[in-house]
Amino acid sequence: MAENNNQPLYYSDYLQLERLLGSQSPKSAEHGRPAHDETLFIIVHQVFELWFKQILHELDSVLALFKGNYVDEKQISVVVSRLLRVSEIQKLINEQFRIIETMTPLDFLEFRGLLAPASGFQSVQFRLIENKLGLRPERRMLFDKNAYTTHVSPEHEKIILQSEAEPSLLQLIERWLERTPFLDFNGFNFWLSYRQAVARMLQFEREKIAGNPAIAAEEKHKLEESLAANVESFNALFDEASHRQLTDKGKRQLSYKAMQAALLIQLYRDEPILHLPYRLLTALVEIDELFTTWRYKHALMVHRMIGNKTGTGGSAGYHYLKATVDKHKLFADLFNLSTFLIPRSELPELPEEIRRNLGFYYSAK
Amino acid sequence: MAENNNQPLYYSDYLQLERLLGSQSPKSAEHGRPAHDETLFIIVHQVFELWFKQILHELDSVLALFKGNYVDEKQISVVVSRLLRVSEIQKLINEQFRIIETMTPLDFLEFRGLLAPASGFQSVQFRLIENKLGLRPERRMLFDKNAYTTHVSPEHEKIILQSEAEPSLLQLIERWLERTPFLDFNGFNFWLSYRQAVARMLQFEREKIAGNPAIAAEEKHKLEESLAANVESFNALFDEASHRQLTDKGKRQLSYKAMQAALLIQLYRDEPILHLPYRLLTALVEIDELFTTWRYKHALMVHRMIGNKTGTGGSAGYHYLKATVDKHKLFADLFNLSTFLIPRSELPELPEEIRRNLGFYYSAK
Amino acid sequence: MAENNNQPLYYSDYLQLERLLGSQSPKSAEHGRPAHDETLFIIVHQVFELWFKQILHELDSVLALFKGNYVDEKQISVVVSRLLRVSEIQKLINEQFRIIETMTPLDFLEFRGLLAPASGFQSVQFRLIENKLGLRPERRMLFDKNAYTTHVSPEHEKIILQSEAEPSLLQLIERWLERTPFLDFNGFNFWLSYRQAVARMLQFEREKIAGNPAIAAEEKHKLEESLAANVESFNALFDEASHRQLTDKGKRQLSYKAMQAALLIQLYRDEPILHLPYRLLTALVEIDELFTTWRYKHALMVHRMIGNKTGTGGSAGYHYLKATVDKHKLFADLFNLSTFLIPRSELPELPEEIRRNLGFYYSAK
Amino acid sequence: MAENNNQPLYYSDYLQLERLLGSQSPKSAEHGRPAHDETLFIIVHQVFELWFKQILHELDSVLALFKGNYVDEKQISVVVSRLLRVSEIQKLINEQFRIIETMTPLDFLEFRGLLAPASGFQSVQFRLIENKLGLRPERRMLFDKNAYTTHVSPEHEKIILQSEAEPSLLQLIERWLERTPFLDFNGFNFWLSYRQAVARMLQFEREKIAGNPAIAAEEKHKLEESLAANVESFNALFDEASHRQLTDKGKRQLSYKAMQAALLIQLYRDEPILHLPYRLLTALVEIDELFTTWRYKHALMVHRMIGNKTGTGGSAGYHYLKATVDKHKLFADLFNLSTFLIPRSELPELPEEIRRNLGFYYSAK
Repeated sequence: MAENNNQPLYYSDYLQLERLLGSQSPKSAEHGRPAHDETLFIIVHQVFELWFKQILHELDSVLALFKGNYVDEKQISVVVSRLLRVSEIQKLINEQFRIIETMTPLDFLEFRGLLAPASGFQSVQFRLIENKLGLRPERRMLFDKNAYTTHVSPEHEKIILQSEAEPSLLQLIERWLERTPFLDFNGFNFWLSYRQAVARMLQFEREKIAGNPAIAAEEKHKLEESLAANVESFNALFDEASHRQLTDKGKRQLSYKAMQAALLIQLYRDEPILHLPYRLLTALVEIDELFTTWRYKHALMVHRMIGNKTGTGGSAGYHYLKATVDKHKLFADLFNLSTFLIPRSELPELPEEIRRNLGFYYSAK
Repeated sequence: MAENNNQPLYYSDYLQLERLLGSQSPKSAEHGRPAHDETLFIIVHQVFELWFKQILHELDSVLALFKGNYVDEKQISVVVSRLLRVSEIQKLINEQFRIIETMTPLDFLEFRGLLAPASGFQSVQFRLIENKLGLRPERRMLFDKNAYTTHVSPEHEKIILQSEAEPSLLQLIERWLERTPFLDFNGFNFWLSYRQAVARMLQFEREKIAGNPAIAAEEKHKLEESLAANVESFNALFDEASHRQLTDKGKRQLSYKAMQAALLIQLYRDEPILHLPYRLLTALVEIDELFTTWRYKHALMVHRMIGNKTGTGGSAGYHYLKATVDKHKLFADLFNLSTFLIPRSELPELPEEIRRNLGFYYSAK
Repeated sequence: MAENNNQPLYYSDYLQLERLLGSQSPKSAEHGRPAHDETLFIIVHQVFELWFKQILHELDSVLALFKGNYVDEKQISVVVSRLLRVSEIQKLINEQFRIIETMTPLDFLEFRGLLAPASGFQSVQFRLIENKLGLRPERRMLFDKNAYTTHVSPEHEKIILQSEAEPSLLQLIERWLERTPFLDFNGFNFWLSYRQAVARMLQFEREKIAGNPAIAAEEKHKLEESLAANVESFNALFDEASHRQLTDKGKRQLSYKAMQAALLIQLYRDEPILHLPYRLLTALVEIDELFTTWRYKHALMVHRMIGNKTGTGGSAGYHYLKATVDKHKLFADLFNLSTFLIPRSELPELPEEIRRNLGFYYSAK
Repeated sequence: MAENNNQPLYYSDYLQLERLLGSQSPKSAEHGRPAHDETLFIIVHQVFELWFKQILHELDSVLALFKGNYVDEKQISVVVSRLLRVSEIQKLINEQFRIIETMTPLDFLEFRGLLAPASGFQSVQFRLIENKLGLRPERRMLFDKNAYTTHVSPEHEKIILQSEAEPSLLQLIERWLERTPFLDFNGFNFWLSYRQAVARMLQFEREKIAGNPAIAAEEKHKLEESLAANVESFNALFDEASHRQLTDKGKRQLSYKAMQAALLIQLYRDEPILHLPYRLLTALVEIDELFTTWRYKHALMVHRMIGNKTGTGGSAGYHYLKATVDKHKLFADLFNLSTFLIPRSELPELPEEIRRNLGFYYSAK
């Protein structure tokens, strides 16, 4: 381990604190009317951006691990721990809104006017995170009928557009799921077994509704509708054409094959060999949910600060942000898998030989 | 301090632990197929209900303090601390969803079928909390076109309907605001001053938009629209008829006079005398937001557990719950006050004599 | 799925809410001077006890899984998820202190006198948790020179003492570690490789200290002392007699063999096959830390409430509780493993054949 | 509102993101062996330092408000809200340890060697916070028999020593308490009333112990000892000489007069006029506790990372950090006030006239 130079390393130099702690220049001071709370406003946003950098660092490393042709299970372990780190960071920054909320709208008014047209909408890193996770431009809320890159500099727009062109985590996960070796086991057709179990379950529910005299006609009708919706969902799982229809309507993101693999991982996650893949899918859902929460809290904070006014960037403010909360979800398909679960007791058990082979295959490859 | 009897008090008796810890009877065990996780399911719900009881204990005491004709400031201090306790409890139970999430949908399926048609929708205490806070039946989401009491027992329905009939916190707060002595100060018309400050501010914004050559025509139009919306909001504050129109459309809850008082408390909250009233309004907004978060997390949890299926109570499940998140907000008017704030520097200062009189009045009454 | 009876299940009956919500009887009301905050005091403790019941439910199931002669990896997955549930509950109840803190010492004084000699020290469930985790009576802080069961009823004492006699989680984990098949691999002596890597590392540090002219004599002496302590720690890892000495002094809990297995799991945790064992050890350390935090917050809360006075049970109060914080740690050996880690880059790599065999062995057994 | 220049403000420029996000230079990359987790390590520390800057910004403004000769109540409101912001930041950074814990000791070992002798012990801002709050150098733990400034640069040492020389928050609060007008009310001696109430309470407890035949001799002795300790505490409150003795032993920080004022604020905090002073004292205790928690979590994190080894700065690591947890508390006197509380029902009521005068005095001054 060679020493970089002869100077002993100093905390403040290592962290470049002089630069870091000298990078807060309140506009209100420049205008001769220093507003005490502007420092908070700046630092809160800077901290958000530092964490975004860290999230990008983790995402980039995960994307790199998946880009190869082969992902071994040891790598999955690394991927999972990095994604879990991302979600720990998200949990923290979701709490960070509590701090900006110590600034009252009245205090914000002291310098808000000086910030226009700068806006959080111009955060390049946040766009990169969204794109790298897999948010496609066509799925984004239009921003006053404009592209989401409207307000950023040409240089930043270029970086953002480039990230659209690269394979996203959603795409790479889909590819990885499609290649999972668990879908066809020679000699054991558990997909068939699963379908049969589903059919039994739906039949049981159908009879339960029909045979219960205590249910009023109106309510019965409602339960039948709900059952029909369930049946339709399952059909799309068992029939590729139905799946494609849902995909075309934007109700599904993952390919037919990837959906099946994800479901199997969910169903057999107690198999040691599927434990890490299961944790991976769970981590993705958690990241998705935590960004949903972030968007929700962000919208709420903007509302609290400026009411129904437009944002400093001339943005539609609260209502725009609120609308993105659900619309910008990415791994909804994974989240929705619970619709397709059947009780563990109904689950066809894997024959010993297959489990052994799987185990061998995975650890030996 | 008389001793109750000669037996020394024992921890387990004081807390009635034998009853408490003997009140978990999993249905799955009764059916001969014990599901490990059902105990968790029961205890999580029991803990929610214990906290609901505590919240009701606090709410009832606050309602009692407000029901009299006169609320002195010392009581406001007590009210604030009890409302803050409610919000601490809410913060905790909002975190409690993390625990139920350790139960996977697969584990839930082991006993879910045994619970129908029981449903969290039948929680009497939760309905009482909503009603005591001020959620009017006419504002509630219909539950499959039915009243929200559809699925509860006649005995419970009676209790719930009775709570509808009593004055709610929203109503009592409104009355308290209307009686605030700060609205007319003889000799100093700060309402007029405020209006003038608002007019100056709006005029300034109008000129800023008009006079900026850098803004494109399309964007200019958008900013003008947004400004017009702002103007309309302020009009409703300055004109009782406009206010009534918004009330009729369901866009305002508080009376014209109460809105003004709430705004003044917000604007002059740094006056020591208005400090506690300000904290009271803030506490109400926080409770509202935390219930919003509760509903949101509850909807998410249901979705995670059962996907798009109907709930055990035959409820529309996730989509119903999701729809109540925003619709069941109560103190939105207080939350929205930030729309009407003007910079502190623009705020007409209260003359010394008035501040002194106010102070005297309050502490001497 | 047979229906239990013909009555449809009702939420309030399923949760036994009538009993549950009727189990709060404030002493202050009995004495004719109702103290508003006593309800909070009761409910906070009842909720703690409900969560303790849930923790015991999980612990008992984990102990049962370990008591057999063979633990397969699928069971480890279940064990890990249940222990993680325990730690989620712990995180929540650690936050619960915030709620009792909304009761001021002044409010507590209104009814505190009525509770003596009842005391949280009499919580049977908390003792059971400690014993089942593995806290031996001889390691406990004496409570005013008395056994920790001094103040509980004879019936409760019996239950507590019985739990002392059963194999604890600490013991079962030790046995499980000792039986791990990873310690001797025929043909590859990685224990030797590890020792060599450690020797290289210590030598490197020794030279670094000796060869650095910039370090003052005094500081050099200090660094040498610290290095010597490190060397002694490693010796106890490589020499069973040294290990036994540390055990006799109470500085180590786990057996020599179990320590080695735990270390190897730590070092090779990226091997898919060691992933779940690693998560198990991590979960135990987390539970230990969270109970440490619980004790710490509990002590702090008692201090805040009653200052330096004795507790209602005549206990030494704060100082006693504070002293147990560190002393009652159980899995310190696992926590301390980081002392023995060496950089991953220095780690001898497992030959492919061994990894494959291990994989096969585990999944096929 | 003059525009700074003709360039519209841009988010990235306002926050100086180019500098900020370009200030992470991992040593491991410089040494040609990039360690993925070093970025996390750097960013976590940078975020800590940004928050420290914000805490200092708030502390400095609070100190400035207190430095004048007169603090009006409106300012107290500002002080309280800024101190509460500090504690919100503390709560967040206390959670931040969860993120660094996603880095395992094994990952840390990949670059730890490259950081010596840099160490968090060199954080200038943390020292400034401690000093500005009021931690006197003579109360600090010695660091290997050296001053706490041992390892910082001469330039930084100068800044730190300068902060020692300025009046600290502890000192300014003490002065503010001493000047509180509530200590002598002409015509009403409530200090005397309080003493009498205390005497009654202690007498009652004495009789309770003596007169209870159910208490064993040994336990009786213990209770008597504890009562005696209580009596001694109260004596120090009623007798300036006793107080001075405790101060000399380092058991009290605040002056005799300041202690009394703080106690009275606690006892009469429901008086509207004492509400803000009460919140101020509470905020100080909370800041103290949250730093205690920070130190505790920091010590734990260091232990988890490096076990019992010395820190990168050659520091005694965990044991040193652990020892500072309690020793560096500042507002223990305020925390300990609960020892002196008496039930609200025993509290002498303030005559109406005094309350009115107080009210008038405060709001008119």
